[in-house]
Amino acid sequence: MQGKFEGTNIAREDKIIQDWINPLFTDMYQIKMTYAEWKAKRHDEESTFELFFRKLPFKGNYAVFGGLDECFKFLENFEFKDEHIEYLKLEIPQAEPEFWVYLKNLNCKNIVLSGMKDGEFVFPDEPLLSIKGPFSLLQLIESPLLNLTNFPTLLSTNATRFVLWAGASRCVEFGLRRAQGPNGAIVASKYSYMGGFIGTSNVYASFLTGCPCLGTVAHSFIMSYEKEDDCKDSRMLDGKDLLVEATKYRTELGWTSTNMGELYAFVSFATGYPKAFSALVDSYSTMNSGIKNYLLVALALKDLGYESTGIRLDSGDLSQLSKDCRKIMTETGNKYGHDFSKHVIVASNDINENSLKALKENGHEIDVFGIGTNLVTCQAQPALGMVYKVVEFQGTPRMKFSEEVEKITIPGSKSVVRIFDEAMKPQFDLLC
Amino acid sequence: MQGKFEGTNIAREDKIIQDWINPLFTDMYQIKMTYAEWKAKRHDEESTFELFFRKLPFKGNYAVFGGLDECFKFLENFEFKDEHIEYLKLEIPQAEPEFWVYLKNLNCKNIVLSGMKDGEFVFPDEPLLSIKGPFSLLQLIESPLLNLTNFPTLLSTNATRFVLWAGASRCVEFGLRRAQGPNGAIVASKYSYMGGFIGTSNVYASFLTGCPCLGTVAHSFIMSYEKEDDCKDSRMLDGKDLLVEATKYRTELGWTSTNMGELYAFVSFATGYPKAFSALVDSYSTMNSGIKNYLLVALALKDLGYESTGIRLDSGDLSQLSKDCRKIMTETGNKYGHDFSKHVIVASNDINENSLKALKENGHEIDVFGIGTNLVTCQAQPALGMVYKVVEFQGTPRMKFSEEVEKITIPGSKSVVRIFDEAMKPQFDLLC
Repeated sequence: MQGKFEGTNIAREDKIIQDWINPLFTDMYQIKMTYAEWKAKRHDEESTFELFFRKLPFKGNYAVFGGLDECFKFLENFEFKDEHIEYLKLEIPQAEPEFWVYLKNLNCKNIVLSGMKDGEFVFPDEPLLSIKGPFSLLQLIESPLLNLTNFPTLLSTNATRFVLWAGASRCVEFGLRRAQGPNGAIVASKYSYMGGFIGTSNVYASFLTGCPCLGTVAHSFIMSYEKEDDCKDSRMLDGKDLLVEATKYRTELGWTSTNMGELYAFVSFATGYPKAFSALVDSYSTMNSGIKNYLLVALALKDLGYESTGIRLDSGDLSQLSKDCRKIMTETGNKYGHDFSKHVIVASNDINENSLKALKENGHEIDVFGIGTNLVTCQAQPALGMVYKVVEFQGTPRMKFSEEVEKITIPGSKSVVRIFDEAMKPQFDLLC
Repeated sequence: MQGKFEGTNIAREDKIIQDWINPLFTDMYQIKMTYAEWKAKRHDEESTFELFFRKLPFKGNYAVFGGLDECFKFLENFEFKDEHIEYLKLEIPQAEPEFWVYLKNLNCKNIVLSGMKDGEFVFPDEPLLSIKGPFSLLQLIESPLLNLTNFPTLLSTNATRFVLWAGASRCVEFGLRRAQGPNGAIVASKYSYMGGFIGTSNVYASFLTGCPCLGTVAHSFIMSYEKEDDCKDSRMLDGKDLLVEATKYRTELGWTSTNMGELYAFVSFATGYPKAFSALVDSYSTMNSGIKNYLLVALALKDLGYESTGIRLDSGDLSQLSKDCRKIMTETGNKYGHDFSKHVIVASNDINENSLKALKENGHEIDVFGIGTNLVTCQAQPALGMVYKVVEFQGTPRMKFSEEVEKITIPGSKSVVRIFDEAMKPQFDLLC
């Protein structure tokens, strides 16, 4: 697992997390129970809670723990503000004034937390976090701890599954627009990076966490070019007219039916990014226009000493198109004595585990997958049923009975020992 | 549609939204394109973009628009901060200094936005938002606008579907712990309220948006009581010993096999909330212990002049259990001349559209449904494919071609007219 979140803006992320995730970010019953426990003088009883899940997500055989980073930030900054207390007074008007003093003074400095690290492989029914401390306080933090671990764990697990199908160093997170809210998007960038993705399209996630940011051009840019005049201020590069140069190749190669609007757009973009020109090639027709216009500009740039980066496919049969594009790129490069065979082919367009499997079976020439919706919303299973249960109270093991057998808990505080074989390969987890 | 978000803490919510959703919260290609357009002197070309979706979610026949509130807040506060610019300079080191001045001065004060309101029924291919303004600016706001409308629209639609199956005024949002991140949870509370839910368990969502907050007690509270000593400080109410009173009824009714730990817990909770006692009844056995202990405490409270509120079922066959509980509540009340038949029965436990349908078919006595995971993660379809496309540029209609027919856009700026019949029932939407 990579990714240590050693970004440059952790302080800012802390602040944002504090704003969102404060002691009010919990379920009302936690606060109602706290009042009843305080009245019963049982709020400070020493107890242990465990956080775990009962079933592996995605019908898989492992999960990857995530969210500990946010849990620490939440716990470190746990404090009821005056405005929170004022709000709660409206909800529990009968509470004695001393109760509000108790809440105001609550903090998590003396709780003891043990468990898994972000990025560790984890399994059902073993404690991912085990927390010892005063009973009511541990109850109050149940809902936020579940919120902060459920989605990151699900997302991290999901990311590793995509990486397994796509191959190492091939996946980029493209899901900002389809994520379930802004921090759904940020969490997706951060934890997919931990799960083996190489970057994100999300600038703010990159700003906050230091994970690399990637992105080039969209259809809207290309569609805005129609006539030659549209690139009048962006066709000159190093004293040469890039449009004229590209058009020469167009005639020479007999590719005279490529869409000219698209070519103007590519020329214009290339003058902005001559050292890293890349193009989205499916706005009109990938094989009849997009890839050819890309190559015309790449050839013209090459004459000026610039190597282009590659293309992105965003629709159509990605297996076939990627093979066809690789072929024409390589052949066209060869024709002029250049090696264009390593230009990067990025593919996006609603990629999921099944489409990655199909691509693997059918063969493809894709170097990088841009993965959005199916990664960031965990479409195959959008929720992980993490739970948080009391296992010891006043030093006595507790268990939950239920009419549903699978909801019965294993009493007592547990520790997990991971057993390795002689070759240091993990064999199984032992629950003690 | 109810819900106007007239909460008391809108200013605070604004601040939080500003922290998360600033101009960096976008895809990198938007910024890369902006630089290319600025260099090509095309960034200020007048253009129109439309936001729409192509397919209705949940195989349904309508969607409910949501997220406009957040879009307004984002647009009103759109401003690149110095720290954002410094970060972007690392990503586009070749950019001229004047480009950063242009970005720094960008704001959304002069764009023109028209479209649907939060809570309106909406349909495929019609513009939900239509935005006129300078091209590059409209491109920069694409990703955040999609993020801010995709999930709220999906969630609002999902909420109305639950309300249709459950009946009006019966659904409460219980999804904080399973939501995809903290503001996934807040959005779920806010927009399910707009979609006809009556409240949320999420205290912070209530604090921010003013939506009612509900919650009573969890298993952890009940499981922490074992011996009589556990309620020694919380059994007295108005000078009477509530445990003694409840135990008298226990003997009288011959319910001597109820779990005593559970009874101590209920007594303890009731002394904290005598005016609104409610109990979670499935910790040990709903019919053999939970409902009986609830009634013992309700009878003892009634003698002191307090009417209890009701029970919550969180496991088992909710149809049968709710009927059995209603029966024993009514009969036990009648035996002592009380009307307990209106005590509220709340049901939770992974409720989804299918379980609501099954409950409707099998009959039930549930008054309120606590709906979590399946509502807040939109499990049946966790993403809505909202898109945002340029439809006019320099006053000329534009369309996108694609190898996939369904990705082709309808060119030109459109307006939507909703046609009503003589009885003011909406008939269809006309795209002009």
